[in-house]
Amino acid sequence: MITVEEARALLFDLVSPLASEEVPLTDAAGRVLARDVSATRDQPPFAASSMDGYALKSAEVELHAMFKVIGESAAGRRFEGRVGAGQAVRIFTGAPIPEGADFVVIQEDTDRRGDLITITEEPGPKTNIRPAGIDFTAGTTIQAPRIIRPEDVALMAAMNIPTVPVARKPVVALISTGDELVMPGDEPGPDQIIASNTFGLKAMLESAGAQVRILPIAKDTVASLEAAFGLAAGADLVVTIGGASVGEYDLVADVSQALGMERSFYKIRMRPGKPLMAGRLGQTAMVGLPGNPVSAMVCGYLFLLPMVRRMLGIEQVLMPFQRAQLAEPIDKNGPREHYMRAVLSEDGIRACADQDSSLLSVLAQANALLVRDPHDPARAKGDEVLYLPI
Amino acid sequence: MITVEEARALLFDLVSPLASEEVPLTDAAGRVLARDVSATRDQPPFAASSMDGYALKSAEVELHAMFKVIGESAAGRRFEGRVGAGQAVRIFTGAPIPEGADFVVIQEDTDRRGDLITITEEPGPKTNIRPAGIDFTAGTTIQAPRIIRPEDVALMAAMNIPTVPVARKPVVALISTGDELVMPGDEPGPDQIIASNTFGLKAMLESAGAQVRILPIAKDTVASLEAAFGLAAGADLVVTIGGASVGEYDLVADVSQALGMERSFYKIRMRPGKPLMAGRLGQTAMVGLPGNPVSAMVCGYLFLLPMVRRMLGIEQVLMPFQRAQLAEPIDKNGPREHYMRAVLSEDGIRACADQDSSLLSVLAQANALLVRDPHDPARAKGDEVLYLPI
Repeated sequence: MITVEEARALLFDLVSPLASEEVPLTDAAGRVLARDVSATRDQPPFAASSMDGYALKSAEVELHAMFKVIGESAAGRRFEGRVGAGQAVRIFTGAPIPEGADFVVIQEDTDRRGDLITITEEPGPKTNIRPAGIDFTAGTTIQAPRIIRPEDVALMAAMNIPTVPVARKPVVALISTGDELVMPGDEPGPDQIIASNTFGLKAMLESAGAQVRILPIAKDTVASLEAAFGLAAGADLVVTIGGASVGEYDLVADVSQALGMERSFYKIRMRPGKPLMAGRLGQTAMVGLPGNPVSAMVCGYLFLLPMVRRMLGIEQVLMPFQRAQLAEPIDKNGPREHYMRAVLSEDGIRACADQDSSLLSVLAQANALLVRDPHDPARAKGDEVLYLPI
Repeated sequence: MITVEEARALLFDLVSPLASEEVPLTDAAGRVLARDVSATRDQPPFAASSMDGYALKSAEVELHAMFKVIGESAAGRRFEGRVGAGQAVRIFTGAPIPEGADFVVIQEDTDRRGDLITITEEPGPKTNIRPAGIDFTAGTTIQAPRIIRPEDVALMAAMNIPTVPVARKPVVALISTGDELVMPGDEPGPDQIIASNTFGLKAMLESAGAQVRILPIAKDTVASLEAAFGLAAGADLVVTIGGASVGEYDLVADVSQALGMERSFYKIRMRPGKPLMAGRLGQTAMVGLPGNPVSAMVCGYLFLLPMVRRMLGIEQVLMPFQRAQLAEPIDKNGPREHYMRAVLSEDGIRACADQDSSLLSVLAQANALLVRDPHDPARAKGDEVLYLPI
């Protein structure tokens, strides 16, 4: 058995950044920018007023000075003439500064009678002019890779970038295995339960930018599992859940190896989720998750999400652990890394009472995984521990 | 002019939680649960083994005891008989515990020869049995409202809830106003710039759960703005951007009042974003944002996002401010609340050098709004300040 860190290194070898595609700017938020993009123009494209007021010559600005208003410059409709001595142009926020002017007196500092204005308050040294290109100039880049935020979308719009190169969404195929499983909405038999892992993992991986296909449940037979692998064709990552120890043999391992899988590793020294297998099936990465619902979800956070982030070209594939103080003491840990379901609140982090890996109700109450090293000693209230937000 | 807090109270009066709709479980993640949902069954529906091993009678468990294996219980296929004295049933994780058995010896603690097993290691007191209903029982609820997480999706699947009642997405119509604006991809004239606010706000509000319609840019004329308001019909919230002071009059205020808007307030004592107006047009809430790109986005975070959250029925409509230490000193603040663009990093929070409200490039580098009270004094490096993550 290998450590979580060793497993992750091997998993990252199974996937690589995907090609890019162009999407309209309105669909770009949340996607990963695949290439640097550049402004095609200066912003503002002209010196512009930052206030409503009067544009005139700074050399003439003094208290009680009087000017003749010879025209108006509005956003989108500049004043085409030139401002001469003793002249002013009415101007609005964002409008181009007319030729000959190099100062805007704000309207609150003036008194207007007909076409004459008088400066009634000391205007101070601020010109109230935004120079051309002060926000950005043609060629200014937004650097890839980055997850595109609303602010980036606004900036790209201003840069006149109508379509955006983003990483293609990784296609993940999820296969639940087990004769005991039926789909939500079906009527389970007395020995059956509802498939839940694929639904939780789909939500998790799609929120990270994947495109997820839930395949039909595979029965615990070679034929059914082979059929499911067939339906997964074209996926970048195939994930099986369960089926790691059915009867006396490992069905998923046997079938995937018969289909040509080069196995990367088998079993990780961690809780929850010991049985975890990975390898490559042709161009497709394959990961076999344990069937316990909580194990599958925890493995999703620790292994699948970083794989998706790597395929998206995100530089920081691992979500960093955070630090918090224990709100309650915890017992010593056993020989495996343990990712305990925990609740983080204002008074610290508290491990959930029951860590059984079948309890989805506990997982749904948790908002953190409390990270324990192998043989980590008992910890007291107030001790600092590591956690992963979920 | 009113404070941000007063403005928010008035804005929340303009909107109320929307009706719910049913969506398939696979579309429920990220939506807001509108009503409590209940499990229709127990999980597990039967006492189940938590390990691979042998089910037998606990009274007979002792080191070196020998048992005859009389059958197998697998997940989905229980053993139909009864375990008698001296008998054991091969059992796998998740499988039903056969009648007569009340203990599972894990397979690592046994030695099997033909149909006989011997207990070779002291099994300890743990029964390795999950009682029926230990995760949840029929009638266990998931309480609304909550933003549905992947863990909730997994739990709902296990509860056999195939469709989920969620709050309808608030429809927000965005209207940019200004003769100077063209759409991304268009060729701007020499006095024109690219509309950016609607694109940034769309990304922001959709990430919070709204459905956003970008309407055609309204020119600075009564007819064009009236046409835009007409196209906004059916929206829950109409947002105009810019047009608050065009020429000598306030175009958006004049047109919206002519259309029957009951004005709630006008202007907020804050930076950036002083000109902000709100009211009600029939059943529709209306907000007029300032045209400066950064002002519009900051107002989006402070006012529009909480309105969307209120329409979604989320209890905590306001995102809480966080605390951080200043990485650099900041000057005293003026008479208005100030939401400074800032960068939070490991060594604290740092206000961006240029706070001009036209600079989208600065906003795109920021990841926080540093919150300043009116007349907040100068602050030293290391002082604790409030911020809103963006």
